[in-house]
Amino acid sequence: MSNNQPVGVFDSGVGGLTVAREIMRQMPDERIVYFGDTARVPYGTKSQGTVLRFVRQIVSFLETHDVKAIVVACNTASAYALETIEREIDLPIIGVIKPGARTAVRATRNRRIGVIATDATINSGMYTRFIQSIDPDVAVFGKACPLFVPLVEEGMLHDFVTEEIANRYLKDLKTQNIDTLILGCTHYPLLRSLIGKCMGDSVTLVNPAYETAIGLKAMLAEHDLLAAPERHDLPPRHRFYVSDGAEKFEIFANSILPYDIRKTQVVDIEGY
Amino acid sequence: MSNNQPVGVFDSGVGGLTVAREIMRQMPDERIVYFGDTARVPYGTKSQGTVLRFVRQIVSFLETHDVKAIVVACNTASAYALETIEREIDLPIIGVIKPGARTAVRATRNRRIGVIATDATINSGMYTRFIQSIDPDVAVFGKACPLFVPLVEEGMLHDFVTEEIANRYLKDLKTQNIDTLILGCTHYPLLRSLIGKCMGDSVTLVNPAYETAIGLKAMLAEHDLLAAPERHDLPPRHRFYVSDGAEKFEIFANSILPYDIRKTQVVDIEGY
Repeated sequence: MSNNQPVGVFDSGVGGLTVAREIMRQMPDERIVYFGDTARVPYGTKSQGTVLRFVRQIVSFLETHDVKAIVVACNTASAYALETIEREIDLPIIGVIKPGARTAVRATRNRRIGVIATDATINSGMYTRFIQSIDPDVAVFGKACPLFVPLVEEGMLHDFVTEEIANRYLKDLKTQNIDTLILGCTHYPLLRSLIGKCMGDSVTLVNPAYETAIGLKAMLAEHDLLAAPERHDLPPRHRFYVSDGAEKFEIFANSILPYDIRKTQVVDIEGY
Repeated sequence: MSNNQPVGVFDSGVGGLTVAREIMRQMPDERIVYFGDTARVPYGTKSQGTVLRFVRQIVSFLETHDVKAIVVACNTASAYALETIEREIDLPIIGVIKPGARTAVRATRNRRIGVIATDATINSGMYTRFIQSIDPDVAVFGKACPLFVPLVEEGMLHDFVTEEIANRYLKDLKTQNIDTLILGCTHYPLLRSLIGKCMGDSVTLVNPAYETAIGLKAMLAEHDLLAAPERHDLPPRHRFYVSDGAEKFEIFANSILPYDIRKTQVVDIEGY
């Protein structure tokens, strides 16, 4: 049995493309409908009620595209909205926090894990909760890094200012003797080399995107929803939607996806 | 003749409070209904269509409060939406760009004016247009400073990182021999001392908030809408609304307004 309906993937903006990229790599037969909420980005500084309202609208939009499953490719939305949405819809749905937590618990040797993320994700305490539901003896140290997203969006990936900011944010984590650090915001993998340099070789960096794609594959298999193999000589048939700034989105997307996208459409998301 | 209805003042978030503060100083009899669109902040990276839609909703909300006039206390909204909204409503309405442009033209001696603002405000070209409609011989040099807003929101007002970023953003303007610089985003007056240090004593910094309050007074007088004197021994009767995060808003507001505010209400702005 197979199912060639698309998988819905969404984020507050462009960060979730790091997750979409991983799904494309691991599951080349799956089609993706991606939505980036660029009119209301960022989510990481907003309240749970507001993020939940935004996510409900996006899920309604994705449902009009007949998706067979949904990937919440945003840590803040996973932290604030996933548990509620799971109860409200019939579709299989997966976020990035559980997969990230699982990988980190497998990676740690000394049972001391750090998490860097937005204010919202850290305040939600979800990484700590999931990690300690797997292994209650793991100590979790969280740190919000609110300037990382604007610095990434300014393209300052290899800049001494970003390094200085990273050193400040990560200073406390370095004294906590962690051996594993979760990059708990989909923008942060783009700062991977700089964060790695700051933390040193003894700390394993976990990017939840990789494990999320593995989790999606398992979830689709469990529901008999994996796509039938496609002819890979044809161009991929993914679709991209945003709530604002299609052109800017495409420039960013084309810098990180393995092929060029065109014709991103703008959606009036508040109407869903 | 007088009119004690409130004046509506709005911004994408907290920045417009620098304008509200100036109105409170110059016109202590006027009551303000302030709205900050904290659920959808920032506006400065978004498109004109999106900003216009947001502004229409906010104007509808303010109209339900029976305001007698509206102040667009946000440069991006003034640049992208004011001219359209002026045609759509009957209320007197004023933005921050014309007053800022007017002050700058009065201040310059060598007719070389710099403008720093968000991407959106710079791209709109509105400061250049207004300045040159007053004096076509003035040369205008614009520079977008996208990291200033997140740095202000992180409270890094007197930090060497902010100084380094300011030096980069302002480097080109310093070689243009400007003698006047417009702080074209309502957050930027909070970086005034740092920007002043970077530009040097020979450059006059223009904060449009001051002149906007003067412009509001003239506009209300012209329409016979000035408030009757109130008893100043009573506490001010301003009201504050946001689309998200009332508590965070109040902390910021109480750090810059001359008295403490309480009971900021959250509004579902998408419903207007």
